[in-house]
Amino acid sequence: MKLSNSFVKTLRDAPKDETAKSAQFLIRAGFVHKELAGVYDFLPLGLRTLKKIEQIIREEMNKLGASEVQMSALQNPRLWEKTERWSNQKVDIWFKTALSAGGELGLAPTHEEPITEMMKTYIKSYKDLPVSVYQFQTKFRNELRAKSGIMRTREFLMKDLYSFSPDEETHNQFYHKVEQAYKTIYERVGLGDCTYQTFASGGIFSKFSHEFQTLIPVGEDTVYYNADKSIVLNEEVVLPEVLDELGIKKEELKSEQAAEVGNIFTLKYKYSEPLDLKFNDSEGEQKTVFMGCYGIGVSRVMGVIAEKFADDKGLVWPESVAPYKYYLAPIGEQANKIAAELEAAHPEDILLDDRNNRPGEKFADAELMGIPYRVVISDKTLAENKAEIKNRKSGETKLLTLDELKGILK
Amino acid sequence: MKLSNSFVKTLRDAPKDETAKSAQFLIRAGFVHKELAGVYDFLPLGLRTLKKIEQIIREEMNKLGASEVQMSALQNPRLWEKTERWSNQKVDIWFKTALSAGGELGLAPTHEEPITEMMKTYIKSYKDLPVSVYQFQTKFRNELRAKSGIMRTREFLMKDLYSFSPDEETHNQFYHKVEQAYKTIYERVGLGDCTYQTFASGGIFSKFSHEFQTLIPVGEDTVYYNADKSIVLNEEVVLPEVLDELGIKKEELKSEQAAEVGNIFTLKYKYSEPLDLKFNDSEGEQKTVFMGCYGIGVSRVMGVIAEKFADDKGLVWPESVAPYKYYLAPIGEQANKIAAELEAAHPEDILLDDRNNRPGEKFADAELMGIPYRVVISDKTLAENKAEIKNRKSGETKLLTLDELKGILK
Repeated sequence: MKLSNSFVKTLRDAPKDETAKSAQFLIRAGFVHKELAGVYDFLPLGLRTLKKIEQIIREEMNKLGASEVQMSALQNPRLWEKTERWSNQKVDIWFKTALSAGGELGLAPTHEEPITEMMKTYIKSYKDLPVSVYQFQTKFRNELRAKSGIMRTREFLMKDLYSFSPDEETHNQFYHKVEQAYKTIYERVGLGDCTYQTFASGGIFSKFSHEFQTLIPVGEDTVYYNADKSIVLNEEVVLPEVLDELGIKKEELKSEQAAEVGNIFTLKYKYSEPLDLKFNDSEGEQKTVFMGCYGIGVSRVMGVIAEKFADDKGLVWPESVAPYKYYLAPIGEQANKIAAELEAAHPEDILLDDRNNRPGEKFADAELMGIPYRVVISDKTLAENKAEIKNRKSGETKLLTLDELKGILK
Repeated sequence: MKLSNSFVKTLRDAPKDETAKSAQFLIRAGFVHKELAGVYDFLPLGLRTLKKIEQIIREEMNKLGASEVQMSALQNPRLWEKTERWSNQKVDIWFKTALSAGGELGLAPTHEEPITEMMKTYIKSYKDLPVSVYQFQTKFRNELRAKSGIMRTREFLMKDLYSFSPDEETHNQFYHKVEQAYKTIYERVGLGDCTYQTFASGGIFSKFSHEFQTLIPVGEDTVYYNADKSIVLNEEVVLPEVLDELGIKKEELKSEQAAEVGNIFTLKYKYSEPLDLKFNDSEGEQKTVFMGCYGIGVSRVMGVIAEKFADDKGLVWPESVAPYKYYLAPIGEQANKIAAELEAAHPEDILLDDRNNRPGEKFADAELMGIPYRVVISDKTLAENKAEIKNRKSGETKLLTLDELKGILK
């Protein structure tokens, strides 16, 4: 992409009420625009990164054999009344709205109820099970406070996966596969080293659920961990009986702040029972479907990546989710010509800074935007038929011949 | 894709309250699921078709040089009060909701206000103009009635493009390019022959706006047209002074029902003036930005395509938007083996019916789903080393050798 074609400009300042480092840089670098507290628009660079994270998650969901759908945001209270999740006393983050034609609707904060109801159309027999369904869908949550940029918002993109099994054993096999898929996802988006599967409260239906927590100083959660024993606990389950069961003492655990980047949950019959999702087993007996749900906040993961890797100069994107891999900054007429040819050949990989501004401004923008590699071509480098390539993360600089550069672009 | 991996089944009946033919078939064929009146979920086949239409539109928007963004659904009343579009008396399709932290929010039925406000951050000088920005985004409209399936819903996917120009002349050039892009889009999705650019009311700011109307018996609009003079008018502008201006008599016009599949609108200063979107011209003088907006309801277009081409056996998709191009129905053990190999080589093009059901059921599902080509491989066709291919639209059947079949799959 040519920067001269972009309507977005980097900004000197972020809104004063924006405290999270990631949000400040995402706004200043032109990835997002703040609509109101907890509500953001995605600008072209931000949308590209969001879609790259989405595509990585999609690929891993498809490998699980899950089918992609897209449910509505507008919700019928009738379903949520059956599971006792319509009342504001039970679920305090509903956005509700009046329908002109009469009655009230909700904006889905999650989708267990409608997906369970929908599956009643398609699940009749044990032959229809197991099955799993996922979506990328905008969730709405009426958070009282929103202060962590795109890490906690009132409207956000979520991947939610739901599994439907004939029994607990089949469920457990799938649940374990999702654990592995989630680990692969965090590795692929660059968070593998600092993200841990964590024991969390299972509510009243399961002993534990699992969260995936990324260690990060501004995280809203506190986790307790023991690296040697590979045990990580959410603060809420650091209780004598849990420690006993896991065979660990509280003194062996260190605490750290973390941000939740995913959760997986054995639902058992919590929704299938009240919503009456049943199947006939091989003996012809009616049984209730055993369910699980598995979430990843896509825009939240983007915020956590931004927060985790940003330095004092700006964002630092892992290659897999960077909007572009190369920031190409030509200096001089011949360099401009070569750069234009390279961009034309690789428009998806190269962000070409073809603006008429000073090299120092180009370099500062490259750093602020966090593009993994900055490539400078100038009369000086061209004298040796070379280009300079700088790694945003390590700061390491190398000279490449133009042929070597074309080679790595392929 | 293998049908045995799909959780969706075709249904014998559609909901009784569903009157539109397209909605009945889309539900029965497993493309959508009805959540409540005017609110639908997209199932895997439906989501594929929706995304194919979206991608065709995206490609044409990118050719215009427009940048893709994604704005929020949640809206700050403050902006809409400035343009006098917050009050329910002025805009009667708002969904409004209360924010826990205090105050009221709206769910965007369109995005002129927030995008105009956002552009104030980026448009400062004539050098920043012209510029155009688009998105694919879920719109919410509190329609009193919703009875046309996915052709008119309370929650729907829309492509909305906004243009920002320094003056009317520059705007007109872009407006004309969008007209051409829209024609290309309707041709590419298969509606080219039956979609007309139509004069419609321009409101108080422009003499006319343009709609794109697809002739279809169940359409909600009435258009008056004269094929020889290539003039099509929305009923609302069939007035003596308009007919005079266009040099046509009412007797020369025939009326027909049509569904609006897009509209383009010269906004002039309607939003930029109250929201104060200004720029410095080359003389340093402050001027107001000249705007246009251009919409296509993506899910609505999908509904119109379904409605337009469906016959008594089911849906009939144009190749460009069909979820899969080939419905492969093998009969017999050797055929199953060959079919499995073909599907594995072309999973994006082939929907393989590998279920253990009768050939008649497979054929009926192929027709209901509207996949452009049904390919049958059986012991009988294999005796001649051939496969039978049937065109869903024309009903024409041909025998191809397996090599010819592999050739067209490439």
